[in-house]
Amino acid sequence: MRAYGRLSSQLRSVKITPHVSEYAEGSALIEFGRTRVLCTASYEAKAPQWLLGSGEGWITAEYGMLPRSTHQRMKRDKITSGGRTQEISRLIGRSLRAALDLKALGEKQILIDCDVLNADGGTRTAAITGGFVALALALKKLQGLSEIKTLPLINYVSAISVGIQGNEILLDLDYDEDSAIGTDMNFVMTDKGEFVEVQGTAEDKPFNREQLNMMMDIATKGCGELFRIQEEIVGPIFKRTQNSSF
Amino acid sequence: MRAYGRLSSQLRSVKITPHVSEYAEGSALIEFGRTRVLCTASYEAKAPQWLLGSGEGWITAEYGMLPRSTHQRMKRDKITSGGRTQEISRLIGRSLRAALDLKALGEKQILIDCDVLNADGGTRTAAITGGFVALALALKKLQGLSEIKTLPLINYVSAISVGIQGNEILLDLDYDEDSAIGTDMNFVMTDKGEFVEVQGTAEDKPFNREQLNMMMDIATKGCGELFRIQEEIVGPIFKRTQNSSF
Amino acid sequence: MRAYGRLSSQLRSVKITPHVSEYAEGSALIEFGRTRVLCTASYEAKAPQWLLGSGEGWITAEYGMLPRSTHQRMKRDKITSGGRTQEISRLIGRSLRAALDLKALGEKQILIDCDVLNADGGTRTAAITGGFVALALALKKLQGLSEIKTLPLINYVSAISVGIQGNEILLDLDYDEDSAIGTDMNFVMTDKGEFVEVQGTAEDKPFNREQLNMMMDIATKGCGELFRIQEEIVGPIFKRTQNSSF
Amino acid sequence: MRAYGRLSSQLRSVKITPHVSEYAEGSALIEFGRTRVLCTASYEAKAPQWLLGSGEGWITAEYGMLPRSTHQRMKRDKITSGGRTQEISRLIGRSLRAALDLKALGEKQILIDCDVLNADGGTRTAAITGGFVALALALKKLQGLSEIKTLPLINYVSAISVGIQGNEILLDLDYDEDSAIGTDMNFVMTDKGEFVEVQGTAEDKPFNREQLNMMMDIATKGCGELFRIQEEIVGPIFKRTQNSSF
Amino acid sequence: MRAYGRLSSQLRSVKITPHVSEYAEGSALIEFGRTRVLCTASYEAKAPQWLLGSGEGWITAEYGMLPRSTHQRMKRDKITSGGRTQEISRLIGRSLRAALDLKALGEKQILIDCDVLNADGGTRTAAITGGFVALALALKKLQGLSEIKTLPLINYVSAISVGIQGNEILLDLDYDEDSAIGTDMNFVMTDKGEFVEVQGTAEDKPFNREQLNMMMDIATKGCGELFRIQEEIVGPIFKRTQNSSF
Amino acid sequence: MRAYGRLSSQLRSVKITPHVSEYAEGSALIEFGRTRVLCTASYEAKAPQWLLGSGEGWITAEYGMLPRSTHQRMKRDKITSGGRTQEISRLIGRSLRAALDLKALGEKQILIDCDVLNADGGTRTAAITGGFVALALALKKLQGLSEIKTLPLINYVSAISVGIQGNEILLDLDYDEDSAIGTDMNFVMTDKGEFVEVQGTAEDKPFNREQLNMMMDIATKGCGELFRIQEEIVGPIFKRTQNSSF
Repeated sequence: MRAYGRLSSQLRSVKITPHVSEYAEGSALIEFGRTRVLCTASYEAKAPQWLLGSGEGWITAEYGMLPRSTHQRMKRDKITSGGRTQEISRLIGRSLRAALDLKALGEKQILIDCDVLNADGGTRTAAITGGFVALALALKKLQGLSEIKTLPLINYVSAISVGIQGNEILLDLDYDEDSAIGTDMNFVMTDKGEFVEVQGTAEDKPFNREQLNMMMDIATKGCGELFRIQEEIVGPIFKRTQNSSF
Repeated sequence: MRAYGRLSSQLRSVKITPHVSEYAEGSALIEFGRTRVLCTASYEAKAPQWLLGSGEGWITAEYGMLPRSTHQRMKRDKITSGGRTQEISRLIGRSLRAALDLKALGEKQILIDCDVLNADGGTRTAAITGGFVALALALKKLQGLSEIKTLPLINYVSAISVGIQGNEILLDLDYDEDSAIGTDMNFVMTDKGEFVEVQGTAEDKPFNREQLNMMMDIATKGCGELFRIQEEIVGPIFKRTQNSSF
Repeated sequence: MRAYGRLSSQLRSVKITPHVSEYAEGSALIEFGRTRVLCTASYEAKAPQWLLGSGEGWITAEYGMLPRSTHQRMKRDKITSGGRTQEISRLIGRSLRAALDLKALGEKQILIDCDVLNADGGTRTAAITGGFVALALALKKLQGLSEIKTLPLINYVSAISVGIQGNEILLDLDYDEDSAIGTDMNFVMTDKGEFVEVQGTAEDKPFNREQLNMMMDIATKGCGELFRIQEEIVGPIFKRTQNSSF
Repeated sequence: MRAYGRLSSQLRSVKITPHVSEYAEGSALIEFGRTRVLCTASYEAKAPQWLLGSGEGWITAEYGMLPRSTHQRMKRDKITSGGRTQEISRLIGRSLRAALDLKALGEKQILIDCDVLNADGGTRTAAITGGFVALALALKKLQGLSEIKTLPLINYVSAISVGIQGNEILLDLDYDEDSAIGTDMNFVMTDKGEFVEVQGTAEDKPFNREQLNMMMDIATKGCGELFRIQEEIVGPIFKRTQNSSF
Repeated sequence: MRAYGRLSSQLRSVKITPHVSEYAEGSALIEFGRTRVLCTASYEAKAPQWLLGSGEGWITAEYGMLPRSTHQRMKRDKITSGGRTQEISRLIGRSLRAALDLKALGEKQILIDCDVLNADGGTRTAAITGGFVALALALKKLQGLSEIKTLPLINYVSAISVGIQGNEILLDLDYDEDSAIGTDMNFVMTDKGEFVEVQGTAEDKPFNREQLNMMMDIATKGCGELFRIQEEIVGPIFKRTQNSSF
Repeated sequence: MRAYGRLSSQLRSVKITPHVSEYAEGSALIEFGRTRVLCTASYEAKAPQWLLGSGEGWITAEYGMLPRSTHQRMKRDKITSGGRTQEISRLIGRSLRAALDLKALGEKQILIDCDVLNADGGTRTAAITGGFVALALALKKLQGLSEIKTLPLINYVSAISVGIQGNEILLDLDYDEDSAIGTDMNFVMTDKGEFVEVQGTAEDKPFNREQLNMMMDIATKGCGELFRIQEEIVGPIFKRTQNSSF
């Protein structure tokens, strides 16, 4: 039995609160059950040095955790120096770049900060899903201010974790499930049902192809639900295409 | 005219929300107008190395800011490496140790984390005032769990800033006021009307003794109001003494 | 056309030279075309602190690059401080732990160092494939010295990259291909045809499920060839099982 | 009884030796009893980046300690990494900026280095008092060299510590007194009897307003004596005003 | 008896393999017995900042070790943070600058990387001797590409260690000899029989002038042999002068 | 002509002031002309970890500079992070270990701190010469306190620099000479006329053996004078032997 009587293919209760930051161009507090991540999008009117003259913009991301976002308090220097933090920051940045036409953004930059207030598993997938909302809100605001001409968004992007427990595939693992389970996969998807990132790790025992296929089915369903929740907050960004997954 | 039509000796709207952290032994989100600080108190069953055998416990604190808690996004490494962060952390620790009988705590340690979600001036005074609440809630919980025998609290502790603008003394400066004003003082007080810390800095022009006296009057009044708000959340800790300032 | 007239599903010329280090318990120089990685396995007679008393051992890995292993010389501090280096180190460690029964290893530790002498794409997959050989040689030597009783190896582990170029799936990308291609996946597999790690990144445009399936087919074939090359060097470790992929 | 038979409101023997550095534009060795601090003022012909175009200059300060300036040798990395060092550096900088009309200085910068050769309590107050002398000597020299047109000094600045022991207020605490005493205040004052910085910390028990008033009285007297000693070295900088405190 | 039956004034077997790096402008793998160092020379078309406008170029060097190049594995951060690594890097740079007319090089820079693959004593002397080869090969290549007009080489440079064991002077110490011996000297010489660097350290007991003279005799002979080996790889660079030492 | 009309083989005016530190077990301020270095010796009652059980003690040293000890102010982090600082620290430690019988010291440790107050060339040789005095004074004091039984000193140790200018050999280079000269050698010697360290660097053009011999002659004479000055301060430590150089 999963906590709160969840079914194996059921998301935790997902809630996104927009405009939670006083100063950020876009922001959202995202909750996946007890996991809470504060996402902000900060605008810079110029692209990073290495893109000057290219006509293209950039999205970068930084992931952080509050020291007591976890069961045991973490030391601040351990949070920042560990490879895990940088790895997740890079993942968020890559994932959110898939939401945009960087040419259409022009030589600008958006910095996404995702800070975990409470960690109960799935912080990186919550960060990507909420980071998309902060990004989209920022772009809409910048369009309103005529800082950018057109909305450069081309995809919704969301992410979800999936795991294997015995013969069952579980969607959206919480901390206890994640700790007990051998295989943990994270899928970052677009609303067209395509993959931006696929990351599967078998900590305990390797998984076979049939299991991978089942995990993809359930992740696709989960991301579809997340797109609907994002759309409620952000509003329709572009027409749903035929191959839309939600 | 102050923002929101505030009088010169009026606090901003102060709000304390307890129990905002899933895991911390004690926690509180404190708001002074648009300034928001998340305070958690984490318990360790043993004192730091240098107190072993002394029979005394310790309170230490760490202050942090989210990168986009400010008008302009700050770089994460600048936040932590700057002297300002360490200076405020030390101030919070010293201030909250005045709330306790460290002998009565025994060889235990409480770590207070104060992370600024939104900064609009007065983050250090908000951190001390909210940190006290997190600390008190943690100690009450630990007493309930029989981790500690008696409540070692001996003082309420709160803090407020005061500034001089022309001929007026302003209570509880917001960011715009703080930037425009020459002299900025922070007072950390107990509910007995005594001082734990007094820190006054004349960035623009020095202040005289009469001005210092006026600032003390207003700070005493402001801290008194904060004690009442703390008491609402924490409940009565000990009998108010005759010399109680609220 | 691929360099050296390679077919789309053809590995580069792979060569493994064992025993290249004077002091390491196990070592191998692995070459995937012009990519060359020096892998060593160092033994420690005790497990890391956090495993004491568990009866289990550990495998950890560190990845590095020589400053002029790349077209443009890299600065030494950039190599070590970047998140990429730590991310790959963690990947190698996780991958090689799947080769072992950590209980059977007992409270010991093996440290795998993978240092890139020349980088022409696929350094992380070469590091995993060569790291396995260094690990297996070290374990055989330790068994010979009676430091460990039984050979704790339970899987061959190898890794390969796959990419999508237009309508074609390319196996084992070199640097030029990797730079030009949108989607790049890395597969870490066991000789039973199972997955230890699956990491796919769509830098340019997302990929669909059919493409993912085709990439898995070709990766499985590529890893099968790598197992045969590993077996030549290491010797048969255990009986090939029915579901053996090579 | 205080060491050397000092009265409660008596300074230690204070001695300032000017021109102790071969290269610095201004320098002074200041001694408060056994506390010895070497202060140098270094000139830069341009202001820091963030003041360019403002017409204003800047004073900044760095505080350091020799490893064996203390009873127990300190490790060099502990001296620099600790928050205390940065906190004192910032305090010295703020204090000495009050001595100057930064507009009159023009777009120049003075860097004050205060290095403790021997620490017996009161190193920060000695650093401020001696730093003023190094600063004033440097400015006089620069005026002589026509690097600056007018002497931008507007205040003498000195600093002293005061503490509470039982019913007595002690001026200028040495190390043993500082360690034994609960409340320690530092006052930075101008020769007009005004306050630049007021920092009081109750490590043991809070202090009340009457005590604070008594501490201010004695600090004012102590700073007055320091101004006379500074004046002997530096020479008269400007006419004493009516409200001059010495 | 020395290992491999070496005579006291006999070099270990020295082997230099040129062109071992795919990308570096010049490279060589140098072996002194079991000591193996990979040397690369990287070209930058402009001189460091502080030489701009001088018409002169620069040679700089960095020394590194692979973690398992030693009997006991070294931690990566210990290798780079230790003073020894920086000290040797500076020595290599100074030594190789003596091989060149920096004016003739023009405002260019060559970076020499010397990474120890296997350490059995004498890594710094091998690095200098092999670094010269990488440097010379790079310069020849750059001349071929017309990046530089004339070959700025003016000296062959090689280096060797010498030690005192009882009454005997030993040439080219291996690790075991180095560990057992009291006095260890390193000589960096030119093919004219002159000294670029002389570094002698008496770890155990001081040495006298007679011993120093004997060490110089043997070092001169050893470097002479190294020049012949270098010349075989690099080809004749300039006419041997009368005072040529080989 | 040398500054102050010095002859080529003449030392600058050398002055050693003992007991300049309030707390250190031994201390000396040493002046070579305008170069001034403060040397302290700190005692630890136990040897470093790696010598436990060996019956031997250790001497280690740290070299530092005050930021304005030089013509141009140096940044504090540049002083400590540079390889030069660590290189000199190691040299001082090695040199002073030659003054002692480490077995006779027993499992104790002495830490020598040499901090440059004013730098005018020859800071490392002044540090070694003054460090010896601090060390000897500390050992005498410790013997007086019965912390150590016998005085473990076996050699006087001093150091001096020598340079080549045209056809002349110059003793004890000041900063201007050092900057203008090509070859700079440092000799660390014992009172028996033996060498502890010999370090020669030809920055400009290599030097030959005859020049090296002449430099040794003059260095021997210079160190002899330093021994006499040390002996005046420290007092006779042991009987002068026949081969005594002064």
